[in-house]
Amino acid sequence: MPESVLHAVKDASIEYEGAGMSVLEMSHRSRPIVELFDSATSSVRELLDVPSSYHILWLQGGASLQFSMIPLNLLPENGSADYLDTGAWSSKAIIECNRVGVANVIGSSKESTYTYIPRVYKQNIGSEYLHITSNNTIYGTQFNAFSEVSRGHGPLIADMSSDILSRPINVSDFGLIYAGAQKNMGPAGVTMVIIRDELIGKNYRDMPSMLNYETHVKQDSMFNTPPVLSVFAVNETLKWIKGLGGLNEMEKRNKEKAEKLYSEIDRNTLFTSLINMDDRSMMNIPFVFEDRAMDDDDFLSFCDERGLKTLKGHRSVGGFRASIYNAMPLEGVEALISAMQEYETLK
Amino acid sequence: MPESVLHAVKDASIEYEGAGMSVLEMSHRSRPIVELFDSATSSVRELLDVPSSYHILWLQGGASLQFSMIPLNLLPENGSADYLDTGAWSSKAIIECNRVGVANVIGSSKESTYTYIPRVYKQNIGSEYLHITSNNTIYGTQFNAFSEVSRGHGPLIADMSSDILSRPINVSDFGLIYAGAQKNMGPAGVTMVIIRDELIGKNYRDMPSMLNYETHVKQDSMFNTPPVLSVFAVNETLKWIKGLGGLNEMEKRNKEKAEKLYSEIDRNTLFTSLINMDDRSMMNIPFVFEDRAMDDDDFLSFCDERGLKTLKGHRSVGGFRASIYNAMPLEGVEALISAMQEYETLK
Repeated sequence: MPESVLHAVKDASIEYEGAGMSVLEMSHRSRPIVELFDSATSSVRELLDVPSSYHILWLQGGASLQFSMIPLNLLPENGSADYLDTGAWSSKAIIECNRVGVANVIGSSKESTYTYIPRVYKQNIGSEYLHITSNNTIYGTQFNAFSEVSRGHGPLIADMSSDILSRPINVSDFGLIYAGAQKNMGPAGVTMVIIRDELIGKNYRDMPSMLNYETHVKQDSMFNTPPVLSVFAVNETLKWIKGLGGLNEMEKRNKEKAEKLYSEIDRNTLFTSLINMDDRSMMNIPFVFEDRAMDDDDFLSFCDERGLKTLKGHRSVGGFRASIYNAMPLEGVEALISAMQEYETLK
Repeated sequence: MPESVLHAVKDASIEYEGAGMSVLEMSHRSRPIVELFDSATSSVRELLDVPSSYHILWLQGGASLQFSMIPLNLLPENGSADYLDTGAWSSKAIIECNRVGVANVIGSSKESTYTYIPRVYKQNIGSEYLHITSNNTIYGTQFNAFSEVSRGHGPLIADMSSDILSRPINVSDFGLIYAGAQKNMGPAGVTMVIIRDELIGKNYRDMPSMLNYETHVKQDSMFNTPPVLSVFAVNETLKWIKGLGGLNEMEKRNKEKAEKLYSEIDRNTLFTSLINMDDRSMMNIPFVFEDRAMDDDDFLSFCDERGLKTLKGHRSVGGFRASIYNAMPLEGVEALISAMQEYETLK
């Protein structure tokens, strides 16, 4: 997370902007906290250029609860939706949809261990929506153009938990966007939902009030006590992004970081990327030894000694993974590149 | 919240116990955070003397989501449960139960604006559980003995959001206890559930994985990214309570605070309590002018000038309300008593 956000949390944990008390103690009904939520909402609206026909919600339960809320709210009795299966998170979303209705998996890259984004598939007539995961943290793929997928039957719904606010998007392409905060937006504990008004209040079934988007729209995300501190940190992160110049600048920085690292992976004789060139993620960059017989742990220790941590690839794919979310500075990527180059000279 | 907790949050927001990074940035899979959750769980087990036949969970969604999770997990198809209606929170729990099955309201003090805890009622044979709200924040009533209600059909389930950890309880009297953290345990964003093992995994219906207690039991509350910072603050609050001497000491302090304030309300010629003597809450103490024609706002301004804030009674009952949760020191109560006495001499 950006230093400025951590310091803002530090200060507000003792005294919130002259309120005479900690942000941890303030009622969510108090004026400063209502204003805090309004500020976070309007910053998202500004940064992502969210049309007025969409609501922005701050919820609990992470993307995992959205996996269920989406079909509960949008599938009629015996309804079905289309899903693209691009990895672990898509798969979980599909499982939860099938508890409510029918998830038709119309495209999947599972057979290749998710090294690409499926492009050849046919949406079902009568599908209520098409669900995608915009960025896949474990496998390192990302949708680089949504225009390809947004035509068809029903609105496009995207889990953007791991790449929200990393680049501009055209919100109008989507019926619903959701994102757990903990990658690019702030700490764990809050989930943002951007939902097109016409998708609110369908009420196809009796469901828990907490799982009905309409509940939270009507109560401005304050149906019950919301996670105030998490939203405070999100709001500070949004300020930081605005201060940098918004999402065009954010994308420029993210592209620069990613391109530098991919260039090195492609150039370096020891390493390689298994991911389809057109689907490479700007956020999560997995790579492996060209010679898979080489010892992953040796390179991980080599990096660790240089202060480069958490580079171990997910256990399902092995190798290495650099997660270079918004807050990762270019210097962090350059340090990794230097380590890769040094390691190459040693071998 | 206790000063020590706020300062711990302040420090950890920059660096978590020598980990070289902020608690806001740490993975919930990292060893220090897994240990943090273990610490919070074992402190609750110690403080509340929770038997080994119960699991302790850290969830999201507040008491409001528990209102739904309880019937979803514990009511079979066409099942019913008994509910005592003692105020706004009970009423919400009843509404959510009725979305899943049938909530039989077997006792209610609604007709008297909830000034007492119902004692005369008959549980239904075949009821899956009896649900109560142990403390009622708006009306200022509290169950002072659970032994009276714990005999009958099905386990006793209690929403203890506003009085958890304020006094010792006998956990064995309950099948399930739940509490949003934001009154006595820490900041908003995490909900504690203590559940008897035999109530886990009944799986009467297909439901969202996030709403199935079994999911969270199997994954040690880490099925998805949990609200790490909120649990950190809870753990610090638990340390603070242990440092004071545990729940016997906590109860002694809470009793002293409440008794002093009730004594003044009873003595002062201007004020009175509308609450049944045996059901008075130690946490939330509402009171009104004996002469309801007197101007509430004038006394509120008088208090405000003395730094005594948030004393306005809930809009549904009017008058005044002192919320004196665990972290409120005796001095805060004494300051209010002084203000009441001064005001009496002025009138």
